[in-house]
Amino acid sequence: MLKTFSCFVLIQTKHQFMAKQIVSKNNKIELGMLTNSSFNLLLTTKYKNSKKIIIVDENTEQECWPFVLTSFEALKEAEVILLPAGEENKVMEVCFQVWEAFTNYNIQRNDLVINLGGGVITDMGGFIASVYKRGLDFINIPTSLLSMVDASVGGKTGINLGAHKNQLGLFSSPELTVCDPSFLSTLDPKEILSGKAEMIKHGLIASKSLFNELLNDKNEIPSSKLIEEAIQIKSDIVDRDFKENGERKKLNFGHTIGHAIEGYLLEKQVEVTHGECVAWGMLVECYLSYELAGLSLEELEIIENFIRKTYSEISIVEADFGQLIYLMGHDKKNQGEKINFTLLNAIGKSTVDYQLDEAVILEALIKTFTT
Amino acid sequence: MLKTFSCFVLIQTKHQFMAKQIVSKNNKIELGMLTNSSFNLLLTTKYKNSKKIIIVDENTEQECWPFVLTSFEALKEAEVILLPAGEENKVMEVCFQVWEAFTNYNIQRNDLVINLGGGVITDMGGFIASVYKRGLDFINIPTSLLSMVDASVGGKTGINLGAHKNQLGLFSSPELTVCDPSFLSTLDPKEILSGKAEMIKHGLIASKSLFNELLNDKNEIPSSKLIEEAIQIKSDIVDRDFKENGERKKLNFGHTIGHAIEGYLLEKQVEVTHGECVAWGMLVECYLSYELAGLSLEELEIIENFIRKTYSEISIVEADFGQLIYLMGHDKKNQGEKINFTLLNAIGKSTVDYQLDEAVILEALIKTFTT
Repeated sequence: MLKTFSCFVLIQTKHQFMAKQIVSKNNKIELGMLTNSSFNLLLTTKYKNSKKIIIVDENTEQECWPFVLTSFEALKEAEVILLPAGEENKVMEVCFQVWEAFTNYNIQRNDLVINLGGGVITDMGGFIASVYKRGLDFINIPTSLLSMVDASVGGKTGINLGAHKNQLGLFSSPELTVCDPSFLSTLDPKEILSGKAEMIKHGLIASKSLFNELLNDKNEIPSSKLIEEAIQIKSDIVDRDFKENGERKKLNFGHTIGHAIEGYLLEKQVEVTHGECVAWGMLVECYLSYELAGLSLEELEIIENFIRKTYSEISIVEADFGQLIYLMGHDKKNQGEKINFTLLNAIGKSTVDYQLDEAVILEALIKTFTT
Repeated sequence: MLKTFSCFVLIQTKHQFMAKQIVSKNNKIELGMLTNSSFNLLLTTKYKNSKKIIIVDENTEQECWPFVLTSFEALKEAEVILLPAGEENKVMEVCFQVWEAFTNYNIQRNDLVINLGGGVITDMGGFIASVYKRGLDFINIPTSLLSMVDASVGGKTGINLGAHKNQLGLFSSPELTVCDPSFLSTLDPKEILSGKAEMIKHGLIASKSLFNELLNDKNEIPSSKLIEEAIQIKSDIVDRDFKENGERKKLNFGHTIGHAIEGYLLEKQVEVTHGECVAWGMLVECYLSYELAGLSLEELEIIENFIRKTYSEISIVEADFGQLIYLMGHDKKNQGEKINFTLLNAIGKSTVDYQLDEAVILEALIKTFTT
């Protein structure tokens, strides 16, 4: 997932601005250099006497942890827990091993978990911390674009149950999230694209200007300004509806279908990023939006061209559409037997709680995957 | 655990008073007949369109569920999930099976879980509900004295991890708890004594008058008035400190040792109730209270006589005291390496956060178990 580390150190010494705080009621999020964030202050004050446990995966252990370790004296005696990388490992069996390690390290309720990694690490590490001894504090240091703009904002933690994404989990906010864009220069382009899908989603549901900026952006890695806009959109929505009773469901745009695609491909052991699945999920849901929510044909075509141009094609045979719909039936946002969707009324404007039945979804799947 | 059902139905038809609401900020608790509580109103209004899942164990399925089913029309189509009884089944493997059943039943976030059973069912059922799809609502109907006065009040949910009691769990409050004393007439005397230990604890830490009433109580089953007093003490403490940062630790009196005893005996497959372990844990901690917290010799002797007279002896060989202390080291309430205790200054008055080291604990264990 992560490529090299060399240029990263360079960037870390070049900028010395303080990390910028994102305006957020339920989450303390900072965007900027980790070394210039409140991370060190927390380690040396509130968590001075706490054991520190760092959860990493194979990639961040190699590419990020050496830098973090050498940058913070307070982490000298931290325990490092190394997890296998990949969505297929975001499961209870792995959590169990970590809890056993916690027990062996004699971790107490006032100790601190630090999640250093992508969405799998922050989602699962947050879950692991939140149910151990009824909740340890944790800090998220997302290292992928996806986890910066999505997984680390909003207090959702979770793991998968079979093919069902994030079926187990709870709402639990980290003490601090630091999004340090320097980490992004070490990522594979595929991973950047994955995160970009969530940024596109934030534009589609709430900000036409962000969508347009992304549409016209020629850079491989989005600028800090765009990242900040994307995080701020999510953070604002979450602040207004933390427990997802209403508006927060907007963030599920693309995900009812996207999660089903991801679960389906995960079971088939096809390698795919979360963002790719969301991108194609968004396209299916844009067809639905055109049919049912007033999205104009012109905007539909702009989105369609953008997604088809940006994301590699995903192959799903028509015979498996039924399985996809079955998986949607187990998505967390449904009420009763119909399937719940957020749809676009226009680019930058969305409405939650469309209850759709199978036939119309099937039609949109056909349009997306068989043309 | 549960004996007969016949007299129970009789009681249910004899009293027609409304259930009494316990004054509580964080929990809605009612004491009285289930049929006269707000249970039915909730089922037929807030949860009118929700699927209802009843979690029972082998005992409550036979002894309680038929009555509940026939009393509430709204439960006619409820799904029943039957779990094996006993503390040794309060483990993740069992939760996993329930989550798989939830998935098969296509349970959604607005559905309702009803826990009908003792502490194992309410603790584990609360945990199962609280982490499924980031939290289903649940209602607790405790059927044992222990779960009425303790497990169902205060928003703690949890399961065991190996010999470590409640190592996994979270704070999560039920929508409603109904404590119906009619269920108690079906319990084995051993189970009544188990719950009584927690009531004695509530007296010891916060109410000399409750302790004295229990000391002089000749009834096998404590009266509703005493149960109400015990619940109210716990509820008041929890209201002042829901997340257990301070005063709530008072409720751990007897439990630092008691949990270790229980974990130790659980591993040895010795059958013992939670309350018995707490009773003996309290005695050990009373010796510590006498040594370190100002409990008078006279009061120590009153408590000692009461516990030794009321609870059957537990046999722990001196060679295993080290193992007990190891298990205490993994109790949730420790800070750093010393072991955290709540001790009594007098009957009805307690202080939290005594940090003790092994030698003094060892001495108290010897006094309790080798004399």
